[in-house]
Amino acid sequence: MKKLINSPDTVLVDALTGLAAAHPELAVDLEARVVLRAGGPQPGKVAVISGGGSGHEPLHVGFVGPGMLSAACPGEVFTSPVPDQLLAAARAAHGGAGVVFVVKNYTGDVLNFEIAGELAAEQGIEVRTVLVNDDVAVEDSTYTAGRRGTGATVVVEKVTGALAERGASAAEVASIGERANAASRSFAVALGAATVPAAGKPGFDLPADMIEVGVGIHGEPGRRREPIRPAHELVAEVVDTVLADHPLTTGDQAIVLVNGMGATPLIELYVVYGEVAARLAERGIRIVRNLVGNFVTSLDMAGFSLTVTKADPELLELWDAPVSTPALHRP
Amino acid sequence: MKKLINSPDTVLVDALTGLAAAHPELAVDLEARVVLRAGGPQPGKVAVISGGGSGHEPLHVGFVGPGMLSAACPGEVFTSPVPDQLLAAARAAHGGAGVVFVVKNYTGDVLNFEIAGELAAEQGIEVRTVLVNDDVAVEDSTYTAGRRGTGATVVVEKVTGALAERGASAAEVASIGERANAASRSFAVALGAATVPAAGKPGFDLPADMIEVGVGIHGEPGRRREPIRPAHELVAEVVDTVLADHPLTTGDQAIVLVNGMGATPLIELYVVYGEVAARLAERGIRIVRNLVGNFVTSLDMAGFSLTVTKADPELLELWDAPVSTPALHRP
Repeated sequence: MKKLINSPDTVLVDALTGLAAAHPELAVDLEARVVLRAGGPQPGKVAVISGGGSGHEPLHVGFVGPGMLSAACPGEVFTSPVPDQLLAAARAAHGGAGVVFVVKNYTGDVLNFEIAGELAAEQGIEVRTVLVNDDVAVEDSTYTAGRRGTGATVVVEKVTGALAERGASAAEVASIGERANAASRSFAVALGAATVPAAGKPGFDLPADMIEVGVGIHGEPGRRREPIRPAHELVAEVVDTVLADHPLTTGDQAIVLVNGMGATPLIELYVVYGEVAARLAERGIRIVRNLVGNFVTSLDMAGFSLTVTKADPELLELWDAPVSTPALHRP
Repeated sequence: MKKLINSPDTVLVDALTGLAAAHPELAVDLEARVVLRAGGPQPGKVAVISGGGSGHEPLHVGFVGPGMLSAACPGEVFTSPVPDQLLAAARAAHGGAGVVFVVKNYTGDVLNFEIAGELAAEQGIEVRTVLVNDDVAVEDSTYTAGRRGTGATVVVEKVTGALAERGASAAEVASIGERANAASRSFAVALGAATVPAAGKPGFDLPADMIEVGVGIHGEPGRRREPIRPAHELVAEVVDTVLADHPLTTGDQAIVLVNGMGATPLIELYVVYGEVAARLAERGIRIVRNLVGNFVTSLDMAGFSLTVTKADPELLELWDAPVSTPALHRP
C-alpha cells in the first residue's frame, strides 16, 4: 500500500491537523474530533450537524461554514463517529434553537446519531434527524437496512444549512431536509476499488475491464458486475435506473450532481456530465443547477455517482443561497 | 483500460460538450476547441489566455472566468494546443488592449504559443508571453528545455487575471505574471502512473511500494525512485528541496498549494498540508494563503505536488481579488 500518511492509526488526526492549518475559518477540536465554524455557535439559529466515516472528503468536514453545516464529526475511515463525539458537536454548536442531524443511512451511523440525540435531549437540546437514503442501487446492503445514503447528502446539507441561516425552526429545517432527500435519487458505478489505510489492500477485487454497477461508497456490492462500456451506454443506463425510481417527466427541473469517487479524472466526469445532460434533455427534463467534481468520495475508488434532485422553487432558492465552506462557495 | 469515455478519439470533444452543458457562464467553441467567457471580449481590457494538453483539469479550462483567464485552449490529452487554436482564442478574446499568453514550459507549448503570437501580431494584436517554469525537480526533462511549468501556473493565472480585470496594460499584466513565476517553486511526487486514453496503459511502471520523486505532470522521470516513506519524512524532504532553491527565510510570507495529481484522496492531501505547515513554521515562514485539492492534475496519477510562492503585498492583493470560475471562486 502506498499512501501519503504517517500511519493508518494517525491518518484522521493528521488530516484534521492539516485541515485546521489550512482553514482558520474552522475550529477543529482534535481531542473531540469535531469540526466547527470558528467563532462559536450562532445564537438563536438551528445548528445543522452531520458526520460519518472519513474517506469521503470533502463530505462532511469540507461543508462546514456559513450557509451549510454548523459542525461535522469525522469517524475513523469508513467508520461511524461515536455518540460522545456527536454529543460534543451538538453541545458546541447549539445556539439555543435546536439541532438537526443529517445522517446517511448506514446502520452504525443511524444508531450512534440516535444515541447522541437522546443524550442531547436529556441535556435540553431539541434534536431532529434527517435520514438520507437516496441510493436506488439496492435495498439493504452490507452496512445498511434500507437504502444507502450517498450523493443527496450534499443537497440535504446545502438546503438545511441555508434554511437554518434564515432563522427557521428545527422542525422546518428538518422538514426541508426530508423533502430534499425525498426529491433525490442516486446511483454509482465503480471502475476500481478503494484501499482503506488500516486494511492495506483494495476493498474488493474487480477483474480487468469489469465494473461494479450500483456500488456503495464503501465498496459495498451493487447490482452486478459487467464489462466496461462506452460512456454514453453506461450513463444512459444509470440515468434510466435513477429515473425509473423517480418520477421526473417532461417539463420538470433538476439539480444534478456528477460526483467523482476519488480517483476519476475530472475530464471523465465532464464526459459523463455531457451524457447525463443529453439523456435528460431527450426526456424533456431541464437541468437548472449542477455540480461536477469530487464531493462524496470513497478514498481512491475510481468511478462516479449520479444524483438527480427534482427541483422546486423553494429547494432552488435554498440551493442558490450564499455558502462559504472549504468545498463549496457561492456569493 | 477502464475509463469513463466513449473512445480515446472523442474524449476531448465529449468533455468539452459536458463542460459547456455544465457551465453556461462559459462559451465553448467545440470546432475551434477554445473555452471563453460567455458574453464576448471585454473592451479595453487585456485578455489573459492559457492552454496546454488536456488531462490536467481543472487547469486550464476550469480557470476561465472573471478575475482569471479570458480563454483557455485545451489540446489533446498531454498534447499541446495548436497555433490555429491559440490564434482563434486570441482573436475571440481580444478586447483591444492586447493579449497575455500564460505558457507552461514544455517545448511543444512554447513553440505553438510563439507561432500563434506571431500570427496574432500580424493581425495587429499585441501579445506578451509569461513562461511558467517553477518545477525544481530537474533541469531539462522529457518534453522540456529548462525547468517544467507546473503548479505555479495557478498562481500566475490568478494574479495576471486579477490585474487584467483592473485595466492594467499588457506589459504590466505580463510583468506581474513573471514576478509570480519567479516567486514560485514546485516539486512533485508520484505514487502511481496515469493512463492516457490513447495509450491504454499506465505511462510508467512503478514497482509496489516505490515512488517517483520529482515526477513531471506527464509522468516524466524525476530525480530518483525510492520506497514510500511516512508522510512527515517525505514532505520534509519535498519542503527542503523547494526551499533550497528558493530563498524564503524567517518572517517571509508564503502562498502554498498542496495539489493532488488526480487519484489521491483529499484526506491524504490534508495530511500532507499539515506536514508542510509544520515544516514551514519551524523555519519561521508564515503561510498566509493556501489551496489544498486537485488543481493541476495528471489524469489518474496518484501523488501530490507542493508549490510555494513567496508572497508580497501586491501578489497577495491580486490573489485575494474576486474570481469566479468553475474551479476557483472568491467573492
